[in-house]
Amino acid sequence: MAKKNTTIYDISKKLNISVATVSRALNNHPRISQATKELVVNMANEMDYKQNNLAKALKSGETKTVGVIVPYINTNFFSSVIRGIEEELSPHGYRVIICQSHDDADIEKKQLNTLLHTQVDCIFISISKTTSDLEYVKKIIDTTNTPIIFFDRKKDIQGISTITIDDHKGAYQATEHLINEGYKNICHLSGDQNLEIYQNRLSGYISALKDHGLPVNQDNIINTGSSIEEGINAMKNLWKRKVKPDAIFSASDFTALGVCKEIKNLKLKMPQDIGVIGFSNEPFTQFLELSISSVDQTPVMMGKVSGNVFLESIKDNFSGITIEKKLVLTPILQIRQSSSRKK
Amino acid sequence: MAKKNTTIYDISKKLNISVATVSRALNNHPRISQATKELVVNMANEMDYKQNNLAKALKSGETKTVGVIVPYINTNFFSSVIRGIEEELSPHGYRVIICQSHDDADIEKKQLNTLLHTQVDCIFISISKTTSDLEYVKKIIDTTNTPIIFFDRKKDIQGISTITIDDHKGAYQATEHLINEGYKNICHLSGDQNLEIYQNRLSGYISALKDHGLPVNQDNIINTGSSIEEGINAMKNLWKRKVKPDAIFSASDFTALGVCKEIKNLKLKMPQDIGVIGFSNEPFTQFLELSISSVDQTPVMMGKVSGNVFLESIKDNFSGITIEKKLVLTPILQIRQSSSRKK
Repeated sequence: MAKKNTTIYDISKKLNISVATVSRALNNHPRISQATKELVVNMANEMDYKQNNLAKALKSGETKTVGVIVPYINTNFFSSVIRGIEEELSPHGYRVIICQSHDDADIEKKQLNTLLHTQVDCIFISISKTTSDLEYVKKIIDTTNTPIIFFDRKKDIQGISTITIDDHKGAYQATEHLINEGYKNICHLSGDQNLEIYQNRLSGYISALKDHGLPVNQDNIINTGSSIEEGINAMKNLWKRKVKPDAIFSASDFTALGVCKEIKNLKLKMPQDIGVIGFSNEPFTQFLELSISSVDQTPVMMGKVSGNVFLESIKDNFSGITIEKKLVLTPILQIRQSSSRKK
Repeated sequence: MAKKNTTIYDISKKLNISVATVSRALNNHPRISQATKELVVNMANEMDYKQNNLAKALKSGETKTVGVIVPYINTNFFSSVIRGIEEELSPHGYRVIICQSHDDADIEKKQLNTLLHTQVDCIFISISKTTSDLEYVKKIIDTTNTPIIFFDRKKDIQGISTITIDDHKGAYQATEHLINEGYKNICHLSGDQNLEIYQNRLSGYISALKDHGLPVNQDNIINTGSSIEEGINAMKNLWKRKVKPDAIFSASDFTALGVCKEIKNLKLKMPQDIGVIGFSNEPFTQFLELSISSVDQTPVMMGKVSGNVFLESIKDNFSGITIEKKLVLTPILQIRQSSSRKK
């Protein structure tokens, strides 16, 4: 039987340091001190840890596959971000595998482990609505070489780059547009406030009202999820009020669609009686007989930029630097029939 | 150093048969003869191939992860099938990873290899429009233990179970419905005839016309892809004809949507002047001011049944039998405003 080749386990045993540290030292990981790196590399040479093994170790985990975890694949926003990631990474030989969290923190954690086990080179995540504890993500950052990149739905964690759009600005512009069209009693359907994106849309709405000298009425901020059904119900309830709204800015296109359905049901005229604007620029907003204004989150661009952050991080990693990037894209307001009263 | 444990490589060397054959013999694979199985198991015992190794080998590849390859994730049909697969397999501890082929045979092949490398337990595929040569799929069936299951877009290959809907019947019912509503000059937008599903929709259209004594006019069968744009163009051209159609049966909801847009543009009345029916029951068909009739392919059910075929195949495999299943689901006609002239 041929002599067994030296492995990183043997080096780990000999130096009495963890296998992870040996692996990261050989991978030139930025968190490993220069002293440790030298110690490991010298021992590797001494123990005849072969160059091709070294090369293999250096390349370890390079499967040319990246993983993406999204809440759902069946919205235009998430599927377009994925398209952007694919468009950016395919020319570099990467393939993309996709997992759904179904907006469930437990499933998200399991999917993350699945992707780690399949040894992807990078994991892109847009976190679920129910995700609060991200200790396990921190642990991944601390104990593996697999970079994690957050897009759109993120939390701030040291070592994780994020790519978002300026949700505050998008909401500000949408609200300002309604004000400019002459609407005065603008309600906001706010989305899940556990997520930063919806917090920022709410703050953008409030800022625009304040800057234009309009009162901020807490009753006009309606907590909804992002389903069609919730839009229908919200509009039903709002129309029972004594002082009725003359415009709705919804943080989601799906609730905006529900609002429009109920407006039709109530036989109101849109945009004359009431104006509506959504958020995300889902394709159906254009398909409708009466098209819905919305805020385009430039999702394909978000995907391309996310992919590029990963590609750059590989370069950075080779030079021993980790750069944590926080990139913010600018949304684009799409004005359509549902809010164009002045024309 | 402890004595090296016997591996399947050692057994393979000793018996001078391939590692794959050893692995499959230990896995009780149906294609391996009883004689070979006995030979391998005896040698394994002789070489002290330990029970726990045996157990590991029996479980080899059981990653509790399955892969799904679809042309695109951003249509309701494919994302719903995936949801069905997840709903069926999650309770059994399986996680699902998803890849897009972008309707490109080369990418499909690469994604298939990616999934094989990540050692998924099963691969579900709905093949791309450009896929013609499936030799590599046959090779996978012959050389690995990874089952492949086709859904919706399939080709007939021995050893591969398929789950489809009865596209012929769906198209027949859609066409018959238009005939019953009094439409007489019904055109068909046929979709990509490289795919069986579209061939079957075309044959269903033709059968319904024949059965109702209507002439089959080749000029009324328009080759289109499945984009909105192609629907717009098809309708534009049809309306330039001397003898104009009074109904359109489109093999795709997206081309049907394009047709409806152009009908509006031409200021025609739907369903009075012209009736329209699509195929797939994409959600937007209901969202529209004037809703579009369509054929529901019951995609969630298709996913659940696909998942179940895999679960059953595991049971079958343990008893040494491989059952190739060809399951066909029945579509459901959804009649809406675009084709209800008689009401």
